[in-house]
Amino acid sequence: MDKQVIGILGGGQLGRMLVEAASRMNIQVRVLDPTLKSPAKQISNFTPHIDQPFTSSDAIQELAQECDILTVEIEHVNCDELATVEKSGIVKVRPSADTIRLIQDKYLQKEYLAKQGLLLPEYIKCDTLDEAKAAGQEFGYPFVLKCRLGAYDGRGNYVVKNQDDVEAGFKVLGGKMLYAEKFVSFTKELAVMVVRRPSGQVATYPVVETVQRDNICELVYAPAQIDGQVREIAMKVATDTVSCLPVGSSGIFGVEMFLHEDGRTVLVNEIAPRPHNSGHYTIEACNTSQFENHIRAVLDLPLGDTGLKVPAAAMINVLGGANGFSSVLDPCLASLDVPGSTVHLYGKADAKVGRKMGHITVVADSALQLSRRTDLIVGKLANASDGERSRLEYRQSAKPSTNGSVCDEEKRDVAAMSPLVGIIMGSDSDLPTMRPAAKLLEQFGVPFELTIVSAHRTPDRMFEYARAAHKRGLKAIIAGAGGAAHLPGMVAALTPLPVIGVPVKGRCLDGVDSLHSIVQMPRGVPVATVAINNSDNAALLAVRIIGASCPTYLDAMAQYMDDMRVGVEKKIERLGISGWKDYEI
Amino acid sequence: MDKQVIGILGGGQLGRMLVEAASRMNIQVRVLDPTLKSPAKQISNFTPHIDQPFTSSDAIQELAQECDILTVEIEHVNCDELATVEKSGIVKVRPSADTIRLIQDKYLQKEYLAKQGLLLPEYIKCDTLDEAKAAGQEFGYPFVLKCRLGAYDGRGNYVVKNQDDVEAGFKVLGGKMLYAEKFVSFTKELAVMVVRRPSGQVATYPVVETVQRDNICELVYAPAQIDGQVREIAMKVATDTVSCLPVGSSGIFGVEMFLHEDGRTVLVNEIAPRPHNSGHYTIEACNTSQFENHIRAVLDLPLGDTGLKVPAAAMINVLGGANGFSSVLDPCLASLDVPGSTVHLYGKADAKVGRKMGHITVVADSALQLSRRTDLIVGKLANASDGERSRLEYRQSAKPSTNGSVCDEEKRDVAAMSPLVGIIMGSDSDLPTMRPAAKLLEQFGVPFELTIVSAHRTPDRMFEYARAAHKRGLKAIIAGAGGAAHLPGMVAALTPLPVIGVPVKGRCLDGVDSLHSIVQMPRGVPVATVAINNSDNAALLAVRIIGASCPTYLDAMAQYMDDMRVGVEKKIERLGISGWKDYEI
Repeated sequence: MDKQVIGILGGGQLGRMLVEAASRMNIQVRVLDPTLKSPAKQISNFTPHIDQPFTSSDAIQELAQECDILTVEIEHVNCDELATVEKSGIVKVRPSADTIRLIQDKYLQKEYLAKQGLLLPEYIKCDTLDEAKAAGQEFGYPFVLKCRLGAYDGRGNYVVKNQDDVEAGFKVLGGKMLYAEKFVSFTKELAVMVVRRPSGQVATYPVVETVQRDNICELVYAPAQIDGQVREIAMKVATDTVSCLPVGSSGIFGVEMFLHEDGRTVLVNEIAPRPHNSGHYTIEACNTSQFENHIRAVLDLPLGDTGLKVPAAAMINVLGGANGFSSVLDPCLASLDVPGSTVHLYGKADAKVGRKMGHITVVADSALQLSRRTDLIVGKLANASDGERSRLEYRQSAKPSTNGSVCDEEKRDVAAMSPLVGIIMGSDSDLPTMRPAAKLLEQFGVPFELTIVSAHRTPDRMFEYARAAHKRGLKAIIAGAGGAAHLPGMVAALTPLPVIGVPVKGRCLDGVDSLHSIVQMPRGVPVATVAINNSDNAALLAVRIIGASCPTYLDAMAQYMDDMRVGVEKKIERLGISGWKDYEI
Repeated sequence: MDKQVIGILGGGQLGRMLVEAASRMNIQVRVLDPTLKSPAKQISNFTPHIDQPFTSSDAIQELAQECDILTVEIEHVNCDELATVEKSGIVKVRPSADTIRLIQDKYLQKEYLAKQGLLLPEYIKCDTLDEAKAAGQEFGYPFVLKCRLGAYDGRGNYVVKNQDDVEAGFKVLGGKMLYAEKFVSFTKELAVMVVRRPSGQVATYPVVETVQRDNICELVYAPAQIDGQVREIAMKVATDTVSCLPVGSSGIFGVEMFLHEDGRTVLVNEIAPRPHNSGHYTIEACNTSQFENHIRAVLDLPLGDTGLKVPAAAMINVLGGANGFSSVLDPCLASLDVPGSTVHLYGKADAKVGRKMGHITVVADSALQLSRRTDLIVGKLANASDGERSRLEYRQSAKPSTNGSVCDEEKRDVAAMSPLVGIIMGSDSDLPTMRPAAKLLEQFGVPFELTIVSAHRTPDRMFEYARAAHKRGLKAIIAGAGGAAHLPGMVAALTPLPVIGVPVKGRCLDGVDSLHSIVQMPRGVPVATVAINNSDNAALLAVRIIGASCPTYLDAMAQYMDDMRVGVEKKIERLGISGWKDYEI
C-alpha cells in the first residue's frame, strides 16, 4: 500500500494491534522495545526489530535511520531525542515530539486545553505541600492529587479524603511535579477516539462509555447509553479537543471525558496521543479500526470510515489475576461459546495481577442482546479471577427468561439503555390509555421513554421533540391522541421515523373522530394507525418494527405469538373440562 | 489460548490470514512454504518457518516434529507423507490425509458425494480420447473437460464447444486423468463455508453469490441476493456435503454450488478442504471469520458464531494486471475513500497478470448501499487495469441521484435484489389502488415483490406466504383489501413482521367498512393502518420502517420530506406570481 516503513516506539499490545493493521495493508513496521519477543514483534517478521528501551537516544537514532516515519504506542518516551531526529529531517515524527511532550505532562496538557477554551475539571499546580493543602481548602474533599508525568492505569493518582490525608498523598506521589484536581460530580465516563491527518483534517469515532474498576478500564460500551444529542455534544468536545492541538498533531488520539450530573455538560479529562484501550472495540465494531486509522494518518493516507457497523458492541479487558494464566485463559476459553465475541490475547509472557493480558470484544444486534452476552462473559471472568465481582450474582439471575419477555433484573438494565421508542400523548388524562403500551415495551425489554407532548398546548415542544427524535436514537414514536387528534400526524410530518397513532376514545363519537383524524393522512405523510384505545397493539407494532431489522426482538415477537396460542389452548382445555354451563370467564 | 503449535502446509494468502487469526488468540503457527518470505511467514515471528516445498517428505517430517497439529492452506500437497506422519501418531493432521486425498482428486470427490446422495452435475470419467468423444455425444455441446488433479482458478478446465473441439481439449489438458461434466443451466453460482470439529459437529456460514470472470472469482456478495428459502436450501446442501465427509474431516470447507435455472435446485460443484476465496468477506462481515473458525476446529475448540454482523457485504479480488503493481495499488488506494471498505494486501513479491494480490471487503447497511459502494471500487479497478470491464460505464451512470430517489440504472440493480417488502392484495382489481405503492418503493430503491394473495379464495397460499415471509427476508408486508378486508389482519396473525393495511374503497360505504375491519384488530395482533385507498402512504411507512434501522433509507426519507416542502414552496411562488384568480391547479 505504501513503501514507507513505520517505526513504532513501544511494542506492547497497542503496537501489536498497529502491526496487525499495517500488515493487512502490506505496510512494514519496525518496533523499538526492550523486550526481545514483545507482543508487537511476535507478529512482524519482515524487518529486524530493535531490542532497546524506547527512552534510549541511540536506539531512537537507529530506528530513525531505518524508517521513514516514527510513531508511538506510549507517550512516556524520550521526546528530546524524538525532537532531534525530527529536526534532522531524516524521518517524520507523527504525532510530533512537541505534541507528545505537551500531552506527556498532564498539567501542561490542561493549561493548553483550558487556553483553547475547553471545559475541564478545576485544577491547580501543587509544587509544595502547602500548595496541596491550599488545593484541599479551595476544592473541598475528596479531591485528587495527580502526578504530572508518567501516570497510567490509575498509577500516579491519589484521592485525598480529608485535610489529614493531604500529606500522605503528597508523599505517596513523590512530592514533586504534582497538581490537584477538583472532584467532578459525573454520571458517566465517556471516551471518543479522534484521528487527525497531517493536514489537520479529523474524523471522529462514536462516543463510548467506560466502566473503571480500581482506576483500570474494565468495560467499554459502544455506543454510550446516553441520549443521542448528548452523544453529539461529546463528539464535538472530542473533535474540538483534537482539532485545537498544535500543528504536527497527527495520528489517533483518545479523549477521555466526564458527563456531568446535569446530563448535558461534557468535561475533558485527558488525552492520549496514540491508540487507546477505549478504542479496541473499533476492530470488530467499526468500519475502520483505530489502529488502521492511525497507520493511515501517519502515512497521510485518506482517513477511513469511523462509523459503527454493528448496532452495539462492548469491550472487556482481560487482566492478570491471582490465578496467573488460568485467570486469563479460563474466561477467554469460556467466551468462545458466546456468540458475537472475539478474543484478543497479546502474547505477554507474565500474567501479573492487574496486567492487561488481552481483551474480548462482543458485538450484538441490540443493547439488550449485548447486555445478555456481556453478562455471560463478565460472569465467567468473575469465576476465573478473584470472585469479588458483584456482577456474577447479578448475571446468574439475569438469564433471559424463556417466554420471550425479560426478567425483573433485566428490566433494570433495559431502563438504563438509550430509548428506542418514544411514547407521547397530548395530556396526562391519556395515561391510563397509554400505560399498557409502556408495560408491553418493558416486558419485551425495549428501552423507551414516556412523556407529554401536546400539539395544541405545546406546539414548540412538539416541533422540537419530533425533529430531534431520530438524532436522539429513537426508532419509532407512539403517539396517543383523542378528539381532533392532531399529534400523531403532525409528528409524522416532522420526523422521518415511523409514527404509530393510537386514537383515544373521548366522551362522544366513540373515538371514531380520533380514528379518522389519525388515519386519514394526506398522501406523503403516513401514520401507522391502530385500533381505538388499543395502545397494546401500538407497542406490539413498535416491537415488530424494531424486530424487522433485529433478530432478538423478532424472535421475542414470534415467542409472544406462540404464547398467545398456548394461552387460548389452555382456555379450550378448561372449557372442555368445565363445560359451557359452568365455564367462568 | 492453546499451547499446541499448528503447522501449515502452504504459506500464501490463505496461510497469512490463518496466521493473523491464530496470532489474535496467541496461538503459534509454523509455515512450510518454498518461498523465503511468503505472505504467511511475513506476519509470524515467533517460531522459525521451513523454506521447503510442501510436497517435500523431509520437510513435512520436519514440520511434524515441531508441531502438534498439521493443517493445509492448499489441497495439492503430499498426501502420502501426511498419511505417514498421521499414522506415526506424532502429530494430528486436520483435515486428515484421507480427506485431502479424496478432495484432491475431483473425480473421486464426485464419486464420493454422489454415493452419499448429493445432487451433482452429470459427470463421466475420460481416460481416453474415445471416452471424451462419447461424453460429448452423451452430454451435448458445450460440455466441460476437467483435470482430476491439480486444477485451480480455472486452470485444468476446458470448455468443449463442439465435436471437432474434443481432441484439442483432450490434448490441452494433458490427455490423462480427466473427466467430463455436463453443462448446467444455472442462474447463479453460490458458495457456503462450513466448519467442522473433529467430533463431526458443524457450523454453516451464510450463502454467498460468486461472480466469476475468466474462471477466476471476481466478486462475492453476502448474503446471496436470492430468496431466503432458497438460501436455506443451499445452506442445507452445503451442510450435508461437509457432514457426509469421512471421519477425520475437520477444519473449514468451502462448498461451491450452482443454483439451477428452475430457481430451487442447488447442485454441488466442488469442495475445498481449507479456507476459500468466497469466505474472505467473513473477516469483516461475520461474528467469527472462516480463518479463526478453521483454527478453532483444528484445535478442537468450540466453533465460533458464523452469522453475519452487518446487513450486506461484498468481496472484490485485486488481481495483478497489465500495469504490474500499479494495477494493484491504484484501486486499493482509491478504495480508501469508500466508506465501509477494508483493503487486504498479501505481500506478494510479483504482480503477475491474474495473480491474487489482495482483496477489498465492503460492508454496508443495505444491498442498495453495498451496490453503490461496490460500484465505486469496481469502477476504479477498471480504470487501473485493462479498462475492459463493462461495469465502468455502468458505474458512472449509477451515481446515486441527489433527490433521494434512485436513478434508472440503479432501479435495474435493485430489481435483482432480494425483496425487503411484499405487496399483496386480495384481487387483481386492487392493482390500480396498490400500484402507487410499488412505484414509490421503486423510486426509493427498496427491493420489493408484488403478488395476489386472497384470504378467502386462497387461504392456504395466505398461510404459506405469511408464515414464510420473515424467513424469506421480508421486513414488512403491505396488504391491500376491500370490503370485509380480512387479509391484513390474518397475515398479521401469522407473521412477526409489521403488516401495513391499506383499506380499499368498494362500491358502497366509501371504504369505511374496510378501514374498520383492518384497523380494529384485537389486542395482541396489530395492523399498521393507513388512509383509505392511500397505498402511497403504505409504501412511505414501509420505507420509514426499514429506515428506522438503516441510515441509507432514513436519509432518503428525510430527503423526500424536504422535496415535498420545496414542491409546495414552488406552488406558493407560482400562486404569488399568477394570483388566486388565474392560478391553475
